[in-house]
Amino acid sequence: MQTEQNEKFSKKPPVTPSSIGNYLLDKLHEKGVRHIFGIPGDYILKFNKLIEEHPHIEFIGTTRENTAGHMADAYARMQGLGVACITYGVGISIVNSTAQAYVESVPTIVISGAASDSEFRRSRRLHHLINTSVTGERDTTQLEIFKNITIGQTILDDPETAAEEIDRIIDLCLEMKKPVYIELPRDMIEAPIANHPAIFHNIHMGKSHLFEKEIQKILHASRQPVIWIGHEISRFHLSDSVLAFAEKFHIPIVSSLLGKTTVSEHHPLFLGVYNGELSSAHLLDYLKDTDCIFILGVILSDIETGIFTAKIDQTHQIIASKAEISIDKKSHHNYCFEEFIAGLQHIPCDAPFRNPAKFVREKVSFLPEREKKITSPRTFTCIESHLQPGNIVVTDIGDSLFGASNFVLDKNCFIACPYYASIGFSIPAAIAVQLAKPAQRVVCIVGDGAFQITCTELSTAIRYGISPILILLNNHGYGTERPILDGTYNDVGNWDYTALTKVFKGGVGYKITTEQELDEALTKAFSDPQQLYLIEVELGQTDFSIGLQRFMQLVTG
Amino acid sequence: MQTEQNEKFSKKPPVTPSSIGNYLLDKLHEKGVRHIFGIPGDYILKFNKLIEEHPHIEFIGTTRENTAGHMADAYARMQGLGVACITYGVGISIVNSTAQAYVESVPTIVISGAASDSEFRRSRRLHHLINTSVTGERDTTQLEIFKNITIGQTILDDPETAAEEIDRIIDLCLEMKKPVYIELPRDMIEAPIANHPAIFHNIHMGKSHLFEKEIQKILHASRQPVIWIGHEISRFHLSDSVLAFAEKFHIPIVSSLLGKTTVSEHHPLFLGVYNGELSSAHLLDYLKDTDCIFILGVILSDIETGIFTAKIDQTHQIIASKAEISIDKKSHHNYCFEEFIAGLQHIPCDAPFRNPAKFVREKVSFLPEREKKITSPRTFTCIESHLQPGNIVVTDIGDSLFGASNFVLDKNCFIACPYYASIGFSIPAAIAVQLAKPAQRVVCIVGDGAFQITCTELSTAIRYGISPILILLNNHGYGTERPILDGTYNDVGNWDYTALTKVFKGGVGYKITTEQELDEALTKAFSDPQQLYLIEVELGQTDFSIGLQRFMQLVTG
Repeated sequence: MQTEQNEKFSKKPPVTPSSIGNYLLDKLHEKGVRHIFGIPGDYILKFNKLIEEHPHIEFIGTTRENTAGHMADAYARMQGLGVACITYGVGISIVNSTAQAYVESVPTIVISGAASDSEFRRSRRLHHLINTSVTGERDTTQLEIFKNITIGQTILDDPETAAEEIDRIIDLCLEMKKPVYIELPRDMIEAPIANHPAIFHNIHMGKSHLFEKEIQKILHASRQPVIWIGHEISRFHLSDSVLAFAEKFHIPIVSSLLGKTTVSEHHPLFLGVYNGELSSAHLLDYLKDTDCIFILGVILSDIETGIFTAKIDQTHQIIASKAEISIDKKSHHNYCFEEFIAGLQHIPCDAPFRNPAKFVREKVSFLPEREKKITSPRTFTCIESHLQPGNIVVTDIGDSLFGASNFVLDKNCFIACPYYASIGFSIPAAIAVQLAKPAQRVVCIVGDGAFQITCTELSTAIRYGISPILILLNNHGYGTERPILDGTYNDVGNWDYTALTKVFKGGVGYKITTEQELDEALTKAFSDPQQLYLIEVELGQTDFSIGLQRFMQLVTG
Repeated sequence: MQTEQNEKFSKKPPVTPSSIGNYLLDKLHEKGVRHIFGIPGDYILKFNKLIEEHPHIEFIGTTRENTAGHMADAYARMQGLGVACITYGVGISIVNSTAQAYVESVPTIVISGAASDSEFRRSRRLHHLINTSVTGERDTTQLEIFKNITIGQTILDDPETAAEEIDRIIDLCLEMKKPVYIELPRDMIEAPIANHPAIFHNIHMGKSHLFEKEIQKILHASRQPVIWIGHEISRFHLSDSVLAFAEKFHIPIVSSLLGKTTVSEHHPLFLGVYNGELSSAHLLDYLKDTDCIFILGVILSDIETGIFTAKIDQTHQIIASKAEISIDKKSHHNYCFEEFIAGLQHIPCDAPFRNPAKFVREKVSFLPEREKKITSPRTFTCIESHLQPGNIVVTDIGDSLFGASNFVLDKNCFIACPYYASIGFSIPAAIAVQLAKPAQRVVCIVGDGAFQITCTELSTAIRYGISPILILLNNHGYGTERPILDGTYNDVGNWDYTALTKVFKGGVGYKITTEQELDEALTKAFSDPQQLYLIEVELGQTDFSIGLQRFMQLVTG
């Protein structure tokens, strides 16, 4: 085997020696990366130069590192892989967006510049460095920090092993759909890389078990099953498999919030987003008589389960995620998530279930009343009435998320972070998504607290000609926190938000107070895909969407 | 001893049981804290409420966590202790500003909310949490991350030990002048705290040695000594001791960049900022014949030493910092930094040195040429000509720092981060400094790249009526990086910066292109302390201060 591989390799034409930096870029390009997000700095500057010179990858300069991480995250959700590059130490605020990618299973790569070994030999007391107490040795503080929030790490300090390390770490990222960390000492960026035979990094565990018999038996015994799908199904590209299984047996599908639009929400078997008691009435109605639940790729977190009100204790319960499988509460080993999900559609079916629930939702319409003050629930109705096929909705946390959770959308047309829930995600995410999918208009819904965290990225959008529609729900503070425990600490400055289009020299701003104004502004925005729109909707401090109102009832009892 | 202490304690009047949160706040107040910076979130919300209700501490809501950390840092440099409070997980971008406080020895406290033990027992899958794989146990990921960048950590999960833990961790922070991390589960915030006898946390090592004899001998053998003081002298409140020593022996003083204004720069013994070959000519002239150097509280980093060009290898060399002492290259133990520095002034002096260098710098004047385009060097001259006694100069990294490094300023009137060098520090720092020292006008100098990172904090300034003067050097990108390796990645968006005063609804903006305009704008700004001024100075891409030009020559060879 070894001989055969070496033989194959020796037959290849001699490869022009590439640098470590270029090898890395070519590999990223091969995996679908067309844009890299970040901020330059002296330890990473040569890599920025290589990106600039690369024929197929564009560097997108952001206003800071944490937002570059959010962009890489959202880009990966659309494109399969996202990359951010930072300089050492001072770029470390990216840990927040990296932690989110880790928790929500998104394959991203953080590439950090670093000082060279020869610099460390002279003195460890270098700018941007964190642990300066041991002279002569590399500062590994950043590596240690990233070990907590990435699935794999490497320092590319050896041209002999760099190629293999790059392959290993990218394979790991794509296999596990979790972030990885690559540290690139600045003298290595242009160092010639040693050739290495292609090694396939098989990190599967042995032969996996598909549990066909067990599942078949459960299906036989069930009357009213349901499939609850989560984000891991879309991350691992398993939507078609799940759909084939559901269609074969006529089993209705619900999705988690994080897994929203894993399948098209127009599919006749799709019932809606299930998050416990927060779900729509028609969905709860069907689930009330359910006796069998497939929980596929869902993480049963507080928000995903409607603060633990989801009914997961059915007569039969199949839980399958990347990390674990349990069938009727019995955990199993020898299991491969992808193979298990792909195998479900091949289970023999004597007769499909006869009465799957059907939920046909009529097209939402919005008839504005001219002078009527706009409210949060009406804002969401108005937005949904304007949505066109293929539009991608990106929401922030809070009212933005809960208000939009019942929009009926196409496949892969919704992005949010309801598990880690880092406010401010939506603006950089919307920009990255628009970049990844230029033909699909992105609609971003964001509250004012979240907006203030990452709004400078509107500048990035305008610089690079990226034109999403941003709808800013101005409820004057951290609205979601007011019903929990209110105080002046929940206030934020009340900006003249649309004046930011003047600051950033681009985009069109509207400040909305009535239904008519919102309807008109959205009509304009949706018909003008070349411009970024910033539409501020003026709301009362406690004017919440129906979704958030119900969430608040749960949280505050 | 134990008995005596208990006896004392029993004689005290019974104390009304306080909550853990209130005990912590009272302790912070006792140590000089009057403001706490941060962003609310559900895990910390009850603590925000306690701050709101506290009679002597005000909560300053920032636009995000990393800037709250910068504010706590700058506040501590002025006030002796700074505090930021965040919610769990999503607040973690504060690691960047915490790492800076760690590296530059600033006593700050990060207080993070967290889920309660009972929540963890139900499920670890809670929003904002990072490691969700072990059910039932507390997620310690954030604690593990902070171990890399703080000197001490505690989780206040036990009312019995909370008071002692709070005392221990705050004492440690103040003793070591490094950040600490306090995690506060949300069910503990209002939990009654158990009384505890006051315990003095003596973390000194035994009896320390003062080395009087050794120093006396060295002074006797030297002809032309110099004292190089760094930031640790001001952090540990040792400026007066060093000055007394210098005055007794007539030894001239130079400071590091990070230690700038540790003593008044108007003092006749003060020669200027020493950073190797980047230093002023008169200073290099004196140092050329130096045979003895006291390096006190300086960290010999790349930037502090003028990229390792500082002449530290003198005939006699005394290096003393919090971490170590070496006398003529021999390291010693049984050493206490504070006691050593305080002891220097008591060394017997037969005859003081006779010809200490004197550098009397004339008051800088600026005569503007009406239509003449302003340049970077002239901008700094103009700013210095306007400075008034007591003004505090806060600079960002890059041209802002190097251009201002030779301003002659009063004691404790300069703040920058030339070691860790996190761009964007200056704006939140200026706001916190102005808050800590309301009677002293703060002048902030910042480049456009740095400005874009943290500019939303101008909103915080305006919300709370804080009115520094901000001078934005717009050289259209990351100017410091252009001479190293230029490319489009060094560009940033060219904003209409002064329009931010419209967005944030406050402050006065000027866009400057000529000398006359700058002079007039500064005249106006300095005479109007109630308003925030944002003065954008339009510069060419490679128009650098003299200081940065020299730095660049060193870096690029």
